[in-house]
Parts: sequence; structure tokens; C-alpha cells
Amino acid sequence: MVARTRGREPMSAEILCIGTELLLGNITNGNARWIAEQLAALGIAHHRQQVVGDNRERVIAAVREAAGRCRLLITTGGLGPTPDDLTTEAIAAAFDTPLRERPEVWADIQAKLTSRGRPVTPSLRRQALLPEGAAVLPNGTGSAPGMIWSPEPGFTILTFPGVPSEMQAMWTATAAPWLRDAGLAEGVFASRMLRFWGVSESSLAERVADLLEQGNPTVAPYAGAGEVKLRLTARAATPEDAQVLLTPLEAEIRHRAGDHCFGADGDSLASVVLAELRRRGQSLAVAESCTGGGIGAALAAVPGASDVFLGGVIAYANALKQALLAVPADLLATHGAVSDPVAEAMAQGVRRCTGADWGVAVTGIAGPAGGSADKPVGLVHIAVAGPDGCVAGPVRFGSSRGRQWIQSLTAGEALDRLRRRLLEP
Amino acid sequence: MVARTRGREPMSAEILCIGTELLLGNITNGNARWIAEQLAALGIAHHRQQVVGDNRERVIAAVREAAGRCRLLITTGGLGPTPDDLTTEAIAAAFDTPLRERPEVWADIQAKLTSRGRPVTPSLRRQALLPEGAAVLPNGTGSAPGMIWSPEPGFTILTFPGVPSEMQAMWTATAAPWLRDAGLAEGVFASRMLRFWGVSESSLAERVADLLEQGNPTVAPYAGAGEVKLRLTARAATPEDAQVLLTPLEAEIRHRAGDHCFGADGDSLASVVLAELRRRGQSLAVAESCTGGGIGAALAAVPGASDVFLGGVIAYANALKQALLAVPADLLATHGAVSDPVAEAMAQGVRRCTGADWGVAVTGIAGPAGGSADKPVGLVHIAVAGPDGCVAGPVRFGSSRGRQWIQSLTAGEALDRLRRRLLEP
Repeated sequence: MVARTRGREPMSAEILCIGTELLLGNITNGNARWIAEQLAALGIAHHRQQVVGDNRERVIAAVREAAGRCRLLITTGGLGPTPDDLTTEAIAAAFDTPLRERPEVWADIQAKLTSRGRPVTPSLRRQALLPEGAAVLPNGTGSAPGMIWSPEPGFTILTFPGVPSEMQAMWTATAAPWLRDAGLAEGVFASRMLRFWGVSESSLAERVADLLEQGNPTVAPYAGAGEVKLRLTARAATPEDAQVLLTPLEAEIRHRAGDHCFGADGDSLASVVLAELRRRGQSLAVAESCTGGGIGAALAAVPGASDVFLGGVIAYANALKQALLAVPADLLATHGAVSDPVAEAMAQGVRRCTGADWGVAVTGIAGPAGGSADKPVGLVHIAVAGPDGCVAGPVRFGSSRGRQWIQSLTAGEALDRLRRRLLEP
Repeated sequence: MVARTRGREPMSAEILCIGTELLLGNITNGNARWIAEQLAALGIAHHRQQVVGDNRERVIAAVREAAGRCRLLITTGGLGPTPDDLTTEAIAAAFDTPLRERPEVWADIQAKLTSRGRPVTPSLRRQALLPEGAAVLPNGTGSAPGMIWSPEPGFTILTFPGVPSEMQAMWTATAAPWLRDAGLAEGVFASRMLRFWGVSESSLAERVADLLEQGNPTVAPYAGAGEVKLRLTARAATPEDAQVLLTPLEAEIRHRAGDHCFGADGDSLASVVLAELRRRGQSLAVAESCTGGGIGAALAAVPGASDVFLGGVIAYANALKQALLAVPADLLATHGAVSDPVAEAMAQGVRRCTGADWGVAVTGIAGPAGGSADKPVGLVHIAVAGPDGCVAGPVRFGSSRGRQWIQSLTAGEALDRLRRRLLEP
């Protein structure tokens, strides 16, 4: 025991992800990345991640090893009701501690199922078992709770389910505040995610190359599907001090990036566009061909969208472009469905039939079939029609990344063109 | 040494990914997943993955631990020319073995740089250093080679750079054939993912409880957003033998699960529905309120959707339900927008205005605002109208998982109701 305690690094954390699906390569370990980001944001040093399968002996071995090295072990996976969910049982066994049923957890599981009209089956009761002495880490959305347990002095385990949405909600609601209050987080980290569209990661990185080198606050680039992000992180004694470090850095980056920076933190292209239209008291409709409803879905995903976003038309088939959006047949015949004139007619048509102030339309070739030398897969025409006229133009995403990638980029690009149009004086 | 050799599991492999960017959560560990898939395909059992940062002592510790447990260690990352690339040096130190420069590697690095017009700097020469006795694992595209080294009897290390494209090319060209020839690959694994909707993970697991216990082939459950999956994996001497094990197991599970099983492997609810309608020569349109286009987007995501899916109407605002779908004003006034009669009128309306054989409509309360005691957040009404009439009904998803979760489940549930309708005799 003495050797163990000596071997531990102060305040260090490890992540242990449990699931045979990770060892088989069925899924990517997004949970490890997400938790790693959160630990960094809390200022908790994190030196090792591990993955083991749904195997009792290997989970026990991994937990014991971690107890010899670190102060805080975060686990994901293996909390469900099926026989291969054995995380809680294995952790209890690793420290020779019996399991006890928590009546309040079992009551909560039954209540959740009943409210969803799902049957309460006996196997679910396993999820109410926790080691003696462990605190419940509540799961607000799913049935399996986690735990916060210190089986040895100076060593604490937090367990989470493997479902990312449940894990993230539990972390935010309970684990992060607990880690702060328990003094495991050292100082405070404050961070801000700046979001960009219309600029590549490498080109943005060149513009801020000197800032990527600095120590505190730090700047780190992330690339997603079309969107590029910069995470600004400051470490300081208090949240106020951290903000003092972040504010001028953010201003400098926004200055260098110009209108490529569309927002920060929880913003999306859809939420930013909706907020600006709400401020103006204007409404929006969409006319979608190749995205099939993806732009509307992105808008509808934003809470409160309904006061700005009216809806629109999914004109996937050319016949619907004519029937519902009144796109003239000769335009389709002369220019083809994937063209500026048709995109314009769709955007104007959806304004007309919905009465919206703004209409956004896309028509393109998402592939894998349907491309030609003249109009290759990845070619999309986008039109934005508003009170002061309509502007259309093409964009080429290339074919290499596939259909859903092209559809996702098209939705982002369409919203970004509307955003830039709204920035015009 | 005896204890070490005894502790090793026969033919077992581990993956060690080295890189501080993984511990900071800057990138997702896609390399671990890719290698895990390759190991499974080669039939090499793989029991643990680890991640450590660019830290000499921690790399040494992780390598020594792995040597005590497994026969084969695959590492990624830390092979480049910068000071924090210390994988090769740390591995050599873990086994007290000196490094020696390989002149042919250094010549290759210089030739590659010269051909790309890049300067040859002295720091690059570090990449030509390998432990005595190690074989070169050539890197056809990048500058840093890997190695194949057995520092102890029965324990082999393969090192790869962290750049995914280089790692994958090196694996395919050299490592996979080497593993096969070295006799480390034992038989093959074949697997099949069965997909379910309308049944909970726990309820499905109970129906197949005995199958979850068996050894080869194995069955493992996974839960996603509304969808539940079972992965069937068989190990055998040849791919054909593995299929012989999988086929009767799949038939048994499909029999027990009944119509909850909607497909396998790359199928989605959307692709299954589109395939059945294509077989019948029928077409489909959608009328979406609370999903804002999500059902259409799911359909359009399937390649070749255009011969079945015509499009539809996003009737997010009530005015559009009337204007575009001809939902009678008195229905909206009497029953409210979230009701069976309005869902029915939407489904029939979109059939009419698009000429589609089938119309699917959803109207519900995605939240977080807009709920009432009578019609809470998470209540959705879904209607499916076809050549033989229209059926509507409510579903309650609860409010706890939030707006996007409700929207996603609504899209899945609507497609599943159409799927079940198409199964009717």
C-alpha cells in the first residue's frame, strides 16, 4: 500500500474505457477524447488512457494498476443491464468490497421506464447495485447511474456509461462540479472555442502561427466537417483572471480571421443566422434538393427556431421543383437542375410560397452517381434570396469524401452564404 | 523473466498510441480503431489499448508492462524528427539496447526530401536510428520508418508513425503480410451487425440471453439513438468456415426478434424502406413539422434515393401546414397542431401535392419550450398514408434527453412505422 501511494503522481488522472466493441474496432473512442478535453479544461493532468474489453479479470487488473499510479480514474462503459456490463462488479471486486442495492436508484429506473411506456424487466435491477460506500453519480437521461467512489485514501473512481450523450450530461451536471469542489482541479482553466467557416485549418493556422506557440493562454486548432475551430485556454488563479487573459487574445484572433469567424462556444451557423434574423424581425424558408432536408433540420435543431424558421420545400425530384416552387420547365431544360438559374428560381419560389423574407436554395450532385465532366460530383449551386434581391453561385466540394460529407458541407455553406449576406451593410 | 513469459496470453496483441495531443483531447484516436479492425481481420486477439504522452519515462513504463502481458505490441506516434518524438529511443531504453544508425534509412530520407525540394536538416538524421537487432518497417510515403523488433523471446514490437495515411500504408504493405507469415495471425474473424428498432437493449438481450453467453460465435449488444444492434462474430480457419458458424446464428436471432430486426451491416431504416419501395415501384414524400427536414435528410443520405424519394414539405409553421399541405384550419383549431388528425391531414396533403404513393408526416413538441400537461415535450404524432389508407398514432419520447434527441428518434420512428406498414400482408 505504501508503494502504491508513493507511485502516484499528484492530481493525475487516467481514463479507462471498457468495451469489447472498442477492441474489435467497431467504434472510435470518442469518449476518451471528450473526457480528455474536459480534464484539460479543469486543469487536471492526465497521463494515460486505457481500453479493455468486457472481461471481468482484465477490468480488475486495469483498475488495480491505475490505483497504483493515479489519483483519479474515470471509466466509461459496462454499466448497462446485460451480462457483459460488468464494470461496477469488477471495480468492487478489485477492492474486495460487496455490492449493495440502492433502493432510490431502482425506483428511479422503474419510474423512467414507466414514463416511456417501456416494460420493467428484472435484469435492469443489476444497475441499482453499487459498492458499499460509493456515492451515486446520477444519470438524468438513461437508466444506468454511475458512481463516485474512493476505495482507498487518495484514489477516487468515477464511472460513466458508454453512451456519449448520457456520459456527457452526467459529466457536466455532476462530475465537473464535484471535481472542482473536491479540489482535484488545480487553479482554474477557462476556455473559449472560436468557430470559423470558409477558411482551411492550415490557412487559419498560418494566420495565427505565433499564437499557437505561446504558453498561457494557449491556442489549439481543431478541424471538423467544413468548420474549423480554435480553442483558447487560459490557466489562472480565478475565473476572472483567466478571462483577463482570454479577452485580448480572442479580439486579436477575430481581427486576424475577419468574417471567417462566425461565433463561439455553443454557436452554430444555424443559431447565428437565426439570431440575426430574429433581431431584424425577419423570417426564413428553405428549398432543398441535394440536401433533402438537411438545412431545415440544422435550423430546427436550434431551440426556439420557430419564430424565424417557417419551413420550406424539399424539392428532390425535378417535378417538385416545378410543382411546388414554380421553377419554369424551360429553365430546367436549358440549364439543367444543377445551375445558378434553377437555384435562384428555387430560392425565389420558396419565398413566394411561404411568404418568408429570406429564401435559401441548394441544388447539386451529391453522388456517388450522377456526375459528368461538365457537372462533377460535389458541384452545388446555392442561392440566397432576400428583400433586396437574389444572389446565386456554385461551389465545388470534390467527390473524394462521399455523399454525406457533400450534403453536410452544402448545408453549412448555404447557411454561411446567408450569414455573410446578412453582414453586408 | 519466467513470470513475465507465464503472464503472457498466447497470440495476444496490445496497441500503444503515443502522443500528448491524444491526452489533451485535441484529436480522436482513429489509429487505435483502424489497427483494432485489422487485428480482428487477421484473427489476432487484442486485449488492451493504451495511450501515453510524449514522455520518455511513461513510454518506457508502458512498453515494459506490455512486454509482461502480450506477444505483440503495436505502437503509433513519436517517430518524427522533433525532440518530442522519442518512441524509438524509449523502446530501446526499455530493453537496455543501444541505437545504431542505419545508413540505408538515412539515404532514403535524404533522397525523399531532395525529390520534394525540401531541405535536408541534421535533425532528420535521428529518424535513421533503430535499436540493434531491429528490422526496418519501411515507410513508402513519409520520412520516418518504423521497426519490427523482438527484444525478448516471444515478444515483438511493431512501430508506426502517427500520421494515419502513412501508418495504414505501412501496415498493408509490410506489417500485415509479416504477421501472417510469422504465424501470429491465427484463423480469421468474420462478423455481422444485426440492426433493430422498436425494442430496448435490455429486452432484446433477454430474448437472446443464452446466445450472449456462448463462446464462438459470440453475440454482443450495442445501443445507439433508438437503434439497438447485435454484433455476431465467428472465429474459424477460413472465411467460409466463419460464415458457416454465422448463418444459423443469424437465422435464430432474426426468428426470436421478429419484425424488430430491420437489417444488417450497412443498412439503415431509410435504406431498408427505400429498397422495399423500389422493389414495388412506389414513391415516397415527407411532411415534417418538428423534425424540420430530418426525415428527408435521412432518406437523401442513402445513395440512389432519388428514384423513390421525391421530396416533400417542411411545414414547421402552422401557416405552412395550411398553405402548402392544405391542412384545414378547423382541424388545427379543434385538435391543435400536435394531434392525429393534423398528422393525417399532413400525410394525405403531401401525397396529394407531390403525387407520391406514400406520405409520412410528423408533428410534435421537440422542446425545450412549448409543452403542456396535456401535450408534454416529447409527444409526437406520426401518420403514414399509402395507397390503402392512412394510419396515425402518437408516441412519447419523454423530455429528458433534449430537443435533438427527440428529433432524431422521431425521424427513426416515422421511418420504422412506414417499414412495418410495408411488412403488412
